[in-house]
Amino acid sequence: MHITSVTSPAEARGRFRAGVRVPTAGWAPGHAQANMIIVPREYAYDVLLFGQRNPKPCPIIDVSDAGSPHTALAADADIRTDLPAYRVWRDGELVDEPGDITGYWADDLVTFLIGCSFTFETPLVAAGIEVRHISAGSNVPMYRTNRPCRPAGRLSGPMVVSMRPIPADRVADAVRISGQFPAVHGAPVHIGEPAALGISDLSTPDFGDAVEIKPGEVPVFWACGVTPQAAIMASRPPFAITHAPGHMFVTDVPDHTYAV
Amino acid sequence: MHITSVTSPAEARGRFRAGVRVPTAGWAPGHAQANMIIVPREYAYDVLLFGQRNPKPCPIIDVSDAGSPHTALAADADIRTDLPAYRVWRDGELVDEPGDITGYWADDLVTFLIGCSFTFETPLVAAGIEVRHISAGSNVPMYRTNRPCRPAGRLSGPMVVSMRPIPADRVADAVRISGQFPAVHGAPVHIGEPAALGISDLSTPDFGDAVEIKPGEVPVFWACGVTPQAAIMASRPPFAITHAPGHMFVTDVPDHTYAV
Repeated sequence: MHITSVTSPAEARGRFRAGVRVPTAGWAPGHAQANMIIVPREYAYDVLLFGQRNPKPCPIIDVSDAGSPHTALAADADIRTDLPAYRVWRDGELVDEPGDITGYWADDLVTFLIGCSFTFETPLVAAGIEVRHISAGSNVPMYRTNRPCRPAGRLSGPMVVSMRPIPADRVADAVRISGQFPAVHGAPVHIGEPAALGISDLSTPDFGDAVEIKPGEVPVFWACGVTPQAAIMASRPPFAITHAPGHMFVTDVPDHTYAV
Repeated sequence: MHITSVTSPAEARGRFRAGVRVPTAGWAPGHAQANMIIVPREYAYDVLLFGQRNPKPCPIIDVSDAGSPHTALAADADIRTDLPAYRVWRDGELVDEPGDITGYWADDLVTFLIGCSFTFETPLVAAGIEVRHISAGSNVPMYRTNRPCRPAGRLSGPMVVSMRPIPADRVADAVRISGQFPAVHGAPVHIGEPAALGISDLSTPDFGDAVEIKPGEVPVFWACGVTPQAAIMASRPPFAITHAPGHMFVTDVPDHTYAV
């Protein structure tokens, strides 16, 4: 359980910097959260192009200069310490899940921050639509799909989706509300029929935790910012660092900045 | 004068390939047009990052693989021949304005296509808002501003804007309609008061042709895809090719694809 009453992004980052290691859904509500991927400068063009070519799963919202641990999305943050958990990858293999990446830092590392569907969860809740993983105090369930992303240079891989069960009579509202946030995954990519996405069992997500689907609810799938992580697992670059799924970077940017 | 009745993108590109050299506003109405910038692969990350950091003037809508003259936006097009006019740049200096760049092509060249405000001109006209440069049969007027773009690597420069005079009682409609197309510059960046943008004389645009501003009309300014060209003039990369301002790449993509 990680229900929180932390409402300030800076305070949230401070807790994570101090060692709190939890999924970030529900933290600092009203502020955008971001997926993260860090690669050497030599690999950065491929990542940036992968985002340009796959904007629904990989909406890149900031890119740091090589070697800089800072971002325009939170002036006082240090991306090496301020996420609750990281994953370190060598040749596509997960080699570490630290709470701090200072020891891995190098002057040629480029940080990409990618929009996160947590950004439209606050408006969903405000509209009276329950977000199950928040009420359950668990991580959002995420699944690899059978839909390939458009490759970019050396990067390719499947689209990953997050799933939220929505009462059938609120699905249209969930589409409308999330569709107002195209820069952070926007409207769902798929509604119902998980098998058509190649998902055989909703109770065994590839990332995060399973959630209960109640009678009368439909599984609704949004493109997910863990997609670049799946591309790393598929494409095996020599080195990369990502956030741990669900353990996001909490920005200072109000959610409504990304609304159209 | 270049009033046209050509309605098919493929036919428009065929005319330009055959040597017709005119601004493209009003050609193949209902189909998105694109700004273009081509740089060596070694410079491509800077251009892609410049677009990510300056999405309003530089919304990148497609990137070709190095050496490929093809784009996902028009399957049968060849970007070396299918624009009406090009500009070739060496060290930031304009060295040629050919109608074909086949002779300049090289295997390391990367092509960026960037959204164009012509995309929302059809909906403006459909709403009964006159687009002056179309009715005048001239090129849209474009101006360098005093607003710097966010630099990216070796690229920096001022934002360039296009200007359309709009009757005061239709300005809100023009904002609303163009705002539905955030991927192709979206809503205006500035309305009225050209001096506040550093524009001292609307009758002498930096690119394109001046247009008449009638009594009761307000100059409305949109971010313009000529901005990367201004960055090239300011940042002086060794080599680049762009479209000639107003002489765009006509894509097969329906305008409404970019509507939200």
